[in-house]
Amino acid sequence: MKVELIYITPNVEKVIEEAGRTSYQSFNRMGEGSEKKFIRMIINLGHLSVIEHAVASFRISDVSRSLTHQLVRHRLASFTQKSQRYVDEKNFTFVEPPKIEENPEAHKIYLDFMESVRETYGKLRDLKIPKEDARFVLPNATTTEIVVTANLREWRHIVELRGSKHAQWEIRRMTIEILKILKREAPTVFEDFVIVGDHVERRKNAKE
Amino acid sequence: MKVELIYITPNVEKVIEEAGRTSYQSFNRMGEGSEKKFIRMIINLGHLSVIEHAVASFRISDVSRSLTHQLVRHRLASFTQKSQRYVDEKNFTFVEPPKIEENPEAHKIYLDFMESVRETYGKLRDLKIPKEDARFVLPNATTTEIVVTANLREWRHIVELRGSKHAQWEIRRMTIEILKILKREAPTVFEDFVIVGDHVERRKNAKE
Amino acid sequence: MKVELIYITPNVEKVIEEAGRTSYQSFNRMGEGSEKKFIRMIINLGHLSVIEHAVASFRISDVSRSLTHQLVRHRLASFTQKSQRYVDEKNFTFVEPPKIEENPEAHKIYLDFMESVRETYGKLRDLKIPKEDARFVLPNATTTEIVVTANLREWRHIVELRGSKHAQWEIRRMTIEILKILKREAPTVFEDFVIVGDHVERRKNAKE
Amino acid sequence: MKVELIYITPNVEKVIEEAGRTSYQSFNRMGEGSEKKFIRMIINLGHLSVIEHAVASFRISDVSRSLTHQLVRHRLASFTQKSQRYVDEKNFTFVEPPKIEENPEAHKIYLDFMESVRETYGKLRDLKIPKEDARFVLPNATTTEIVVTANLREWRHIVELRGSKHAQWEIRRMTIEILKILKREAPTVFEDFVIVGDHVERRKNAKE
Repeated sequence: MKVELIYITPNVEKVIEEAGRTSYQSFNRMGEGSEKKFIRMIINLGHLSVIEHAVASFRISDVSRSLTHQLVRHRLASFTQKSQRYVDEKNFTFVEPPKIEENPEAHKIYLDFMESVRETYGKLRDLKIPKEDARFVLPNATTTEIVVTANLREWRHIVELRGSKHAQWEIRRMTIEILKILKREAPTVFEDFVIVGDHVERRKNAKE
Repeated sequence: MKVELIYITPNVEKVIEEAGRTSYQSFNRMGEGSEKKFIRMIINLGHLSVIEHAVASFRISDVSRSLTHQLVRHRLASFTQKSQRYVDEKNFTFVEPPKIEENPEAHKIYLDFMESVRETYGKLRDLKIPKEDARFVLPNATTTEIVVTANLREWRHIVELRGSKHAQWEIRRMTIEILKILKREAPTVFEDFVIVGDHVERRKNAKE
Repeated sequence: MKVELIYITPNVEKVIEEAGRTSYQSFNRMGEGSEKKFIRMIINLGHLSVIEHAVASFRISDVSRSLTHQLVRHRLASFTQKSQRYVDEKNFTFVEPPKIEENPEAHKIYLDFMESVRETYGKLRDLKIPKEDARFVLPNATTTEIVVTANLREWRHIVELRGSKHAQWEIRRMTIEILKILKREAPTVFEDFVIVGDHVERRKNAKE
Repeated sequence: MKVELIYITPNVEKVIEEAGRTSYQSFNRMGEGSEKKFIRMIINLGHLSVIEHAVASFRISDVSRSLTHQLVRHRLASFTQKSQRYVDEKNFTFVEPPKIEENPEAHKIYLDFMESVRETYGKLRDLKIPKEDARFVLPNATTTEIVVTANLREWRHIVELRGSKHAQWEIRRMTIEILKILKREAPTVFEDFVIVGDHVERRKNAKE
């Protein structure tokens, strides 16, 4: 799995403060560091529409198609994904779940199976079956690459939902990688989300 | 593939007319059949927000996960899908692309492969691998079931995009089944879409 | 203020249950009244996407343009509104806030002002100023009419936000009228929202 | 009217190309200036989801509340607006439509009316009527300030709809100011939109 930040709104926390103060016309209260207090206030009040003015875009690769089938359900984000209709997959790579990897018998079955997928895909392509039909044999485990752009309100929603201990392990790992980057780039916006071992928890009362 | 209408807005074309006449307060022009003229006018003018007040919901089953991975990209629709995390797939069924079915050699390879998937999935489950991990071997061809609800503006968009001759064959077939039902239930709203052989074309100038 | 239900999904709670059971393929658990238990479960778990398959549409009239400027900010709803560009407003009506009505001096100032608006609008129209420009003198108090369609998840969100005691009085009144109708039509979906005097509260723990 | 760019995605056209090439994994075709050819291709093909990865944010002030009531109907954008519930408007300013300004008689009626609004608002406030109720007398002409953030696909949609000769004059002027900035910052993405006198036209065939 690889998670790279493509871009985030420049001066992200100041942009949020400047946009947000439009409601109250309280621009005179701006100063060095005032954005932190302002952002804590709007998050505590739940006035999250203000943080929609900031956006972050990530390139995510070496994740399974299972993961992306879940991820693209987030309707307030934008996606561009590697297409199995147009890209040949004869050298496809795959994700292996930890519970399979840790079980020697299951691990061997899994690797042998993936080898048989590769052969089957190759044979179908040799028989002139188009890529868009040969891909029907590719498993959920097949890796893909996706670019995801969303505003910070939606990223907070993704972090809360997909980082929780009830989330599936692969999307939870991806979420933690994304959250680490977001906490570095927009620390106040994400300070109430804390990485605890293998999942994310929200501390409801951010410090004032 | 199976496509069933769950429900459509009752008196759908009258509801659209009554909602649309709110802008102009032209309720006095309503009469028997007046909805047809009104709907043709708004479609020709491109005032499509009015048809958002009508909604249709479908249950779609025996389609591949490839199809649903495309379908769920339509962000203005609502989806509930059979979960491979919670439902055991040891008796999974699959879609076979026509170009594979028509080629005897490819057909045999395909069927043998699907049998090996079934065995592999079963072995992993016997080794106590959880469903959410065993599903990593399931292919794109695996059938699924999904309920989709969208307003008629979004259904027009889906019909235009997914019914076109550039669309992938399986989603195009699904679109034609949906369009047949929509043309029966809301004939004026969909009269500019015409099924031509295996795809859908839009006749730009609906009759006045 | 007048709030009328245009339509709601037929058999609304059964439709939600049937859609929702698609995830788990647990259709065998359906029976008389089973939808209530199912809906309580998904609301308690926060799996609210399932209730998006049900939709309700309302016609709201004799409310101010202040109210609709707030209401149309709900982006997951569809709107058709009476247009001040196309409809002549020389006989416009207006909303009067209770705090003005209760204060005899303010009340007189308010009524006199509204009379002067009417005269001004009329004079501008007599001078051949088009409706779309003459409307610039119309006040926020001017009544309007709007049709709003949304799914029940979005209606729950509107009820929670616009029914709260922090909401503005006019939109709060509208919300209570809407909630009364929704509680009659889809009682389980809205049972955790309770009307307490002039506002709405959510009882977090719905009965199991 | 004042239109200021707050930010746009850095290296905006390169970001679009890099995101878009993910589908085809054609990163090897990137070079100096290759983004222009790529963007023209996707716009001609209608693959507009790719340009959703780029975002622009504007601060718009000294426009009427009539304008913003239209603008906030664009549901794929994010808004923060000066609030008449929280900001005192005793010194409100207003927009005057050109057709009123050019007619001496109408112009005088209009200015006198605005003066009477100011007096009425002031009297109501002196009687301790809260801002959220006193604002009911404020006219559509009252100026406001709004921050709008949207991706470039939505800005293209806004430009096409609100810049057209059928659009209302004030929002058309705003659109032209926005388009001038967007054409400077992302010239290829907006090259098919041309400012012709007081409105915008789309030249369907961008140069290849």
